[in-house]
Amino acid sequence: MQQSAQLYDVINRRRDTRREFTGEPVDDGVLHRILSAAHCAPSVGMSQPWDFVMVRDATTLETFRDHVTDERAAYARTLDGERAATFERIKVEGIVESGLGIVVGYDPTRGGPNVLGRHAIADAGLYSVVCAIQNLWLAATAEGLGVGWVSFYREEFLRDLVGFPEHVRPVAWLCVGAVSGLPEVPDLERFGWRHRSPLDGVLHDERYQAGSNLAT
Amino acid sequence: MQQSAQLYDVINRRRDTRREFTGEPVDDGVLHRILSAAHCAPSVGMSQPWDFVMVRDATTLETFRDHVTDERAAYARTLDGERAATFERIKVEGIVESGLGIVVGYDPTRGGPNVLGRHAIADAGLYSVVCAIQNLWLAATAEGLGVGWVSFYREEFLRDLVGFPEHVRPVAWLCVGAVSGLPEVPDLERFGWRHRSPLDGVLHDERYQAGSNLAT
Repeated sequence: MQQSAQLYDVINRRRDTRREFTGEPVDDGVLHRILSAAHCAPSVGMSQPWDFVMVRDATTLETFRDHVTDERAAYARTLDGERAATFERIKVEGIVESGLGIVVGYDPTRGGPNVLGRHAIADAGLYSVVCAIQNLWLAATAEGLGVGWVSFYREEFLRDLVGFPEHVRPVAWLCVGAVSGLPEVPDLERFGWRHRSPLDGVLHDERYQAGSNLAT
Repeated sequence: MQQSAQLYDVINRRRDTRREFTGEPVDDGVLHRILSAAHCAPSVGMSQPWDFVMVRDATTLETFRDHVTDERAAYARTLDGERAATFERIKVEGIVESGLGIVVGYDPTRGGPNVLGRHAIADAGLYSVVCAIQNLWLAATAEGLGVGWVSFYREEFLRDLVGFPEHVRPVAWLCVGAVSGLPEVPDLERFGWRHRSPLDGVLHDERYQAGSNLAT
């Protein structure tokens, strides 16, 4: 798709996609570009602690979709009244429809025994993996693809499904694929779950001020 | 600075900056654009669980720099021989030189009691905050600014320094400022700490294959 690849345009256009996948396969060259963008992310001590598993096998996609459906139901049972009714309208995944899942893992053994910058903050390696995911997401958006980050799953289930060893932590299942378009308004806002808050509510000068935060 | 703001160029140009800060103040309009880019990041259940504290006070910058210097020394003591000598050459922060620290916090209470998508993965909120950081970093790069993510600190120290309440977790101190330029090669590679690995080593088809990983 011919669309602006200017950074701010891409950042504003990016959406979490569930409904819009067409199932058309992703071109290998495009896929390589978005994975290269991910691999260019910053990483603590240059450990590059990420792994990417491309899942297209129909049985694996369906197995994961079924697991996510169960977890969706588990969450739905925690909701009452209006929240339950609103959630009912929201689609939380496009696993089978997208035709491609990119499973992202975090391998804390990457980068040797003394990763520079991780001695005080153990999670710094995990942060690196998420930077890679955000690069991938923006690159996919620039390429006209949709990305949906699925978070209704148990980590152990996904670890077993793609064969991660015990020390590799699953961080994301990303549905990636061609889309009919990206919604202008995020689904959670469109369907009345929650509205975006203004920037001013999260900015603080010199020190945190509880008053400058919006009511949650 | 007039440079390409095309997404892939920005992703490739982005560097972790420590040595290149000029100390020139960041324009308010530019700062607002990069914070807006951060605030456009995806977030689990649209919780937007981030906070940004702008620190410019000289005493606060120096206090944090001194703490980081101590933590750097603590890490250095864990290294032997060539690693210790190589690390000696590497600068790990530009806190005072940049003139602006953006402290990023994670507030898990944002978004109400039942954050959609967080019931199975508690860390999903933390992931959202890192997506915001990566957006900020890319936007700053597009604006010609440098960003250095400092990770040589204790979270409790930073929490106290900027007055985060107990439930807000410090996720990053970002040195942000005007730079003389961005290095083409990352510092850790330039100074012989570690080399970037090729993408192929972290890609897997359908299932994780230990063999496709590079030696750490």
